Amino acid sequence: MASPTSFIGEDFLLTTEPARRLYHDYAQGLPIIDYHCHLPPREIAEDQSFENLTRIWLDGDHYKWRAMRTCGVDERFITGGAPDKERFLHWAQTVPKLLRNPLYHWTHMELKRPFGIQDKLLSGATAEAIWGHCNELLATPEFSCRGLLRQMNVELVCTTDDPTDSLEHHRSLAAEPKAGFTVLPAWRPDPAMDVSDPERFNAWVDRLEAVADVSIGSFQDFMTALRRRHEYFHGMGCRLSDHGIERVDAEDYTLAEIGQHFSRLRCREALDAASAAQFRSAMLYEFAVMDHEKDWTQQYHLGAMRDCNTRMSPTLGYDSIGDFPQARGLAKLLDRLDATGQLCRTILYNLNPRDNALMATMCGNYQDGRTVGKLQYGSAWWFLDQLDGMREQLDCLSNMGVLSCFVGMLTDSRSFLSYPRHEYFRRLLCSMLGEDIEKGLVPRDFELVGGMVQDICHHNAERYFRFEAINP
Amino acid sequence: MASPTSFIGEDFLLTTEPARRLYHDYAQGLPIIDYHCHLPPREIAEDQSFENLTRIWLDGDHYKWRAMRTCGVDERFITGGAPDKERFLHWAQTVPKLLRNPLYHWTHMELKRPFGIQDKLLSGATAEAIWGHCNELLATPEFSCRGLLRQMNVELVCTTDDPTDSLEHHRSLAAEPKAGFTVLPAWRPDPAMDVSDPERFNAWVDRLEAVADVSIGSFQDFMTALRRRHEYFHGMGCRLSDHGIERVDAEDYTLAEIGQHFSRLRCREALDAASAAQFRSAMLYEFAVMDHEKDWTQQYHLGAMRDCNTRMSPTLGYDSIGDFPQARGLAKLLDRLDATGQLCRTILYNLNPRDNALMATMCGNYQDGRTVGKLQYGSAWWFLDQLDGMREQLDCLSNMGVLSCFVGMLTDSRSFLSYPRHEYFRRLLCSMLGEDIEKGLVPRDFELVGGMVQDICHHNAERYFRFEAINP
Amino acid sequence: MASPTSFIGEDFLLTTEPARRLYHDYAQGLPIIDYHCHLPPREIAEDQSFENLTRIWLDGDHYKWRAMRTCGVDERFITGGAPDKERFLHWAQTVPKLLRNPLYHWTHMELKRPFGIQDKLLSGATAEAIWGHCNELLATPEFSCRGLLRQMNVELVCTTDDPTDSLEHHRSLAAEPKAGFTVLPAWRPDPAMDVSDPERFNAWVDRLEAVADVSIGSFQDFMTALRRRHEYFHGMGCRLSDHGIERVDAEDYTLAEIGQHFSRLRCREALDAASAAQFRSAMLYEFAVMDHEKDWTQQYHLGAMRDCNTRMSPTLGYDSIGDFPQARGLAKLLDRLDATGQLCRTILYNLNPRDNALMATMCGNYQDGRTVGKLQYGSAWWFLDQLDGMREQLDCLSNMGVLSCFVGMLTDSRSFLSYPRHEYFRRLLCSMLGEDIEKGLVPRDFELVGGMVQDICHHNAERYFRFEAINP
Repeated sequence: MASPTSFIGEDFLLTTEPARRLYHDYAQGLPIIDYHCHLPPREIAEDQSFENLTRIWLDGDHYKWRAMRTCGVDERFITGGAPDKERFLHWAQTVPKLLRNPLYHWTHMELKRPFGIQDKLLSGATAEAIWGHCNELLATPEFSCRGLLRQMNVELVCTTDDPTDSLEHHRSLAAEPKAGFTVLPAWRPDPAMDVSDPERFNAWVDRLEAVADVSIGSFQDFMTALRRRHEYFHGMGCRLSDHGIERVDAEDYTLAEIGQHFSRLRCREALDAASAAQFRSAMLYEFAVMDHEKDWTQQYHLGAMRDCNTRMSPTLGYDSIGDFPQARGLAKLLDRLDATGQLCRTILYNLNPRDNALMATMCGNYQDGRTVGKLQYGSAWWFLDQLDGMREQLDCLSNMGVLSCFVGMLTDSRSFLSYPRHEYFRRLLCSMLGEDIEKGLVPRDFELVGGMVQDICHHNAERYFRFEAINP
Repeated sequence: MASPTSFIGEDFLLTTEPARRLYHDYAQGLPIIDYHCHLPPREIAEDQSFENLTRIWLDGDHYKWRAMRTCGVDERFITGGAPDKERFLHWAQTVPKLLRNPLYHWTHMELKRPFGIQDKLLSGATAEAIWGHCNELLATPEFSCRGLLRQMNVELVCTTDDPTDSLEHHRSLAAEPKAGFTVLPAWRPDPAMDVSDPERFNAWVDRLEAVADVSIGSFQDFMTALRRRHEYFHGMGCRLSDHGIERVDAEDYTLAEIGQHFSRLRCREALDAASAAQFRSAMLYEFAVMDHEKDWTQQYHLGAMRDCNTRMSPTLGYDSIGDFPQARGLAKLLDRLDATGQLCRTILYNLNPRDNALMATMCGNYQDGRTVGKLQYGSAWWFLDQLDGMREQLDCLSNMGVLSCFVGMLTDSRSFLSYPRHEYFRRLLCSMLGEDIEKGLVPRDFELVGGMVQDICHHNAERYFRFEAINP
Repeated sequence: MASPTSFIGEDFLLTTEPARRLYHDYAQGLPIIDYHCHLPPREIAEDQSFENLTRIWLDGDHYKWRAMRTCGVDERFITGGAPDKERFLHWAQTVPKLLRNPLYHWTHMELKRPFGIQDKLLSGATAEAIWGHCNELLATPEFSCRGLLRQMNVELVCTTDDPTDSLEHHRSLAAEPKAGFTVLPAWRPDPAMDVSDPERFNAWVDRLEAVADVSIGSFQDFMTALRRRHEYFHGMGCRLSDHGIERVDAEDYTLAEIGQHFSRLRCREALDAASAAQFRSAMLYEFAVMDHEKDWTQQYHLGAMRDCNTRMSPTLGYDSIGDFPQARGLAKLLDRLDATGQLCRTILYNLNPRDNALMATMCGNYQDGRTVGKLQYGSAWWFLDQLDGMREQLDCLSNMGVLSCFVGMLTDSRSFLSYPRHEYFRRLLCSMLGEDIEKGLVPRDFELVGGMVQDICHHNAERYFRFEAINP
């Protein structure tokens, strides 16, 4: 076996000289603005530590779960009740089978940073040593939630929060002057649009009622309550919303119809498909208008087909890529908003890569010549968050949009160990530009190209989102 | 900054020795048959000159407009009323932000040919010098419309013309024996199928009535008038038609139904969606039959979603890529025509790259063993007219069709400066084949491979279209 | 002309040192498990020989037919009545036009193995010599059907068989102890689901009635007869089913409805579209349950649009790639089966490459942690069976699934000469992994990577399909 020390070294992915120069001189040192992730605010607020590698690495990571299942690992060792160490050993035995999957790189990048392991590849043979080494480090202050964010040079994090959330952890974090990074909430009102199950919908509306202190009998009440929460989130520094939906519904409707649909829902009646689509159409519009009023950025994560396995719990990673029509609805909503000057900054993420070109060119329809890169074709997401997926997103954006205006990478992750994904993205970006320089496709002008790299890796996001940092 | 003189040199894109040999020995010197473009015939007929670089470069170029809007340039400096020089300066400042976009290459290729600028990259810093240099040249006869076509070695141009057009400029061009190139009309009857707005439709039918000298009361009259114009276009040397549509409608219908639909339209009544689809289905069929009778080639440009921004004028570049179903309708129409021996030579262009494989294999269903490459999977178009898009079209055609039968590149452009796009295509083609030779995927047989390059770059188009050149 | 001896040599596709090592040391010597093909069982049972190269190479090969038609060859020389040698000459003259098409590689790989021709490229000029050389060899015992399978190191073949087939040839093959390879049937009940033509459907049901010795008046009888045949196939060693369909229908239905649909069909009544979809939905479910009971593997070949040219006979290669929605129906059927523990091992093949990511991630929803790689994203198929298509399937599977669990290549071919396609696949796989090693994306650990190569090329299939070999 060749020395694994050569795997994921200083120049990982940087196969050309210009790539190495771009990465090391321009990208590497920049702090991270992670404007969309799923880190649990409570864990940051309490500065939680992790008992062992299983807790920080396997809990909550559906990527690993799916890979283990595919490799024939019993669910007991994945999300089931087996002891932590046994679960880790099964993961370690799985890793050598994952060559060419992003997990293989992520795993070893995470072992390298922050754990400092460069001489070992994870496998059944090295599991014991790595378990011991990492668990020792996890017990130190540098490996608490906050310690990890600081080690990883994270400047700002936007979590993903339900409108009914109290944001108590964000509040306590905001009160601390010296965290070294900013943690802001982001507004994710998916439950307000998901009317497939009237019971669940009403349970959510009841929670909203309580937290907004508004009795919700009508659609108007519903909107009043949501607006109060939106206002509250804004006060807490929130500047982004996010919608995780199959597609943008943009059916015609009247507010009278929506009012009736809401009343039916509130009486625990199910809506037929057409009414449900009208309801979602109205909500997407109303949320967009709110975001515009507050000068937020809205995000659409489009195209996932969720909970495809009814035998298993829906949160355990049983989702895949759908083939929903996207263009018409999206254009109709964005156009409606643009026509009245109510379209805020918007980021479109697609899950089915067959829609890359559609999304990249859709953005161009609503660029207004006032905000740089107002419409953003968002970073490769979920199943596409790997070298090929990121490369395709970057190529598509380059060819059909303006790469230099791109606000760049995010983790979209629940894990405090996932920050090397920013490094992965930066290395890839520099690798692509370095190859372009070598091939004569881009001028060998490091001021120009290096500046673009820095904009994409940090500065564009800083300018674009207009955060009012609270505890920097 | 590295010397920009090295950017876009003699061997741009030609990174292997076989690629350089293929390009310089086989492709470079061939004249251009631009069988589909949007050059204004009047400007050629009048041999118009251009007052300055803004007029020839920015006016009419929606690619540049979209890029500038994305970069935050105010519309006044794009399509608005700002002075030409200011508009140019804003464009110049935008260019360095467009690395990896085809505009970056196109811009510098166009500055190199015909303007001879090889030592400067366009930017705010070089704008003044380039403005002066180019405007001086634009005042010389070599830089008039015709001068440019001759400089670019253009042999034949097919413009894109409305059936109601008088073709007066084509007529006057045809009367000139020594233009050095041929300009032919092409038949684009989109307005005859677009029944979404009865007012607009009837206004067009009225124009048709006048120019064809046929009173149009019935669908039969409509067809009589269109056939007269088709005949007239044929007499003017037209050998291509073109349809810019979302998808091929191929609904079942009777001529009685179509007659009723037409009568309703003529009475300014709107058609419901199903009737409109029937009407379009009938028109596509009728046009195809006409084209077959005259031994023309028909082109389908499929998949654009147009005029997505109602706030802005529809001609200013607010279109994007749709996700329309394509296979069934296309197959149904082509099969109907083939079944009765009425399918003429046909070129399919798709805008959504997710349909590449569908289109390439669709062609194979109707190859008849009589006309070489009778069904053509057309060159990468609009948003796909860039290195990746062209490469993907060529790869798909190679894998699922027969590359050597390909009729090759076209500009599809409104600009007299866009002819370097043929050079771009040729360099890419030679680059791909050169790499194939280096990798052992294609034999190192320059007679064989060079011959194929020449066929694709010129000879196939010459054989395929059966032009009767008028003023060569 | 450069020496063609350098074309398709020992290291074809193997451009890196690790690739050469992986191929020559790990992949090359492994026997072939061709678990899905269309070889005619009769020809193997009778150990047929081929009179000449046309008979073995052109008869039945729709890839070549389509290419010849595109190149303008008259149908008489393709599938028509021209003498064999003339047909071969037309093919030979076509070959030089097919650069970059997989036929160009397949042709020369097949001439090299088994015909030993390495110094000639096929063309009009070499046709005569190659015709003579190959025909001489075809007359020898090593070039009979069985001789070829042995030369190609084929260990096991699954043919594709109609449920009404007697399997007499499989039976006679199974009785021979020393064939040197195993030939098993596979169950392809497409005619039981294709109710578009009641006459054809009933003719098939009548045949089923006879062979199953069951009078079929009701849907229940239909299922009884099919189950008898399924049982019979199982006894003959069958372990795979296959469905060639546009998409997976998964409509809601009751068995009462299906019974009525069947009765209507049996009375020669056509079903409306919704009823036909229900009927197909029921059949797909019932077949899946049968396969699970017998621990078979089911295959879905999804997305072809067949018989697009009504002027020509449907078997002559007039099919292309459709754009059917795939995700919902597929998930619904697989989930229904999984929910009751009745989902057997399943392989998904898509014809439209735009669905690659959809398919690869769909598999992940039903991996159960018991069977390694239970859901398989199948090898690139038909129009995608070329270097780019295979690379894209492998990349997608790598990124979104687990490559190391892949059961690998199959020929899907009617031709005894098509086994170099396994070599093509293996070379590509090793080439990709070799490049990954060179780029530092995969560790330079030949035990690890070489083991994975061997698993994919042979061992995974051996473990996965659970064949009970009959005449090894």
